[in-house]
Amino acid sequence: MMALLLIDIQSGLQETTYYGTERNNPQAEENCAKILNAFRDKKLPIFHVMHNSTNPFSPLYPGKDGNSIHPLVQPIDGEPIFQKKVNSAFIGTDLEIAMIAQNITDLVIVGLTIEHCISTSVRMAANLGFHVTLISDATAAFDKIGFDGKRYPAELIYQTELASLKDEFAKIMDTFTFLAELDN
Amino acid sequence: MMALLLIDIQSGLQETTYYGTERNNPQAEENCAKILNAFRDKKLPIFHVMHNSTNPFSPLYPGKDGNSIHPLVQPIDGEPIFQKKVNSAFIGTDLEIAMIAQNITDLVIVGLTIEHCISTSVRMAANLGFHVTLISDATAAFDKIGFDGKRYPAELIYQTELASLKDEFAKIMDTFTFLAELDN
Repeated sequence: MMALLLIDIQSGLQETTYYGTERNNPQAEENCAKILNAFRDKKLPIFHVMHNSTNPFSPLYPGKDGNSIHPLVQPIDGEPIFQKKVNSAFIGTDLEIAMIAQNITDLVIVGLTIEHCISTSVRMAANLGFHVTLISDATAAFDKIGFDGKRYPAELIYQTELASLKDEFAKIMDTFTFLAELDN
Repeated sequence: MMALLLIDIQSGLQETTYYGTERNNPQAEENCAKILNAFRDKKLPIFHVMHNSTNPFSPLYPGKDGNSIHPLVQPIDGEPIFQKKVNSAFIGTDLEIAMIAQNITDLVIVGLTIEHCISTSVRMAANLGFHVTLISDATAAFDKIGFDGKRYPAELIYQTELASLKDEFAKIMDTFTFLAELDN
């Protein structure tokens, strides 16, 4: 059984001021919504995960506007929401138990950000034994300052993280290709 | 209590023929040995993790020469070895239980490769609540082919992965700086 896992698609991850950088893939949330709607149409299981930052200065701190799930992917009745405080969707949550209970074997993952919570959750999902598909244009990165002091642009962080996840942890597909295959 | 975690420092990860690429940081194993010797001198806990690939074509497949732990970091009596089959040192092993039993709170991590098993183990260790230090020149990457079809050189895969792990998951230090601090 295949399920959709939406991770940290929260308004605060458009607040580039806090992160001090531009993000790549500005259309990621729209693609997340397309994938979500396709899963709803097919009545396939959907799991939402949201991040409650423990850092009061984060836009994802509970109670702040940025903590709210993005309007394009608001959960509806029957779609469980798992709250987490760390990067992995599987640590400190009952997500793995819920998936096993529903015989989920294949996970389609979308959300933010690829270099932090998505990479961590994809890696752990694969290592726990799920077959993972990551939708390339339904995730995004921010710029990062390296250990060498250089600034690495969001698009490069994104492409190198995809390269490291590819084959070893996940099948990578874009939204168009995934939706075409789902309809077949 | 601080412990050292050595991950997948096995002979097969010098076999660049299989991986079809050059590796960066050729001195990584020597630096791992320097860190290991410092932990032995101080009688601090040491945990070895080795990878038993489930892929018969991998140099890390059990029974192949490449599966053996590198001569520079051979375990000695009293240093436990944890065997794993996936990237994370914490999945399918009793490593977390062993660490909790010894009151380990701080983990120094060295080994191979940064983009696969090191990144996955660092991320999960941090999310499980350990304070993680990753030794920058005691790990290394291989070239990767991206989802966009481009080849990303080992040094770039390494620097971008360090950038993504830095601050969010681990403190990054080089061998020289770490050993100087340990002696203080």
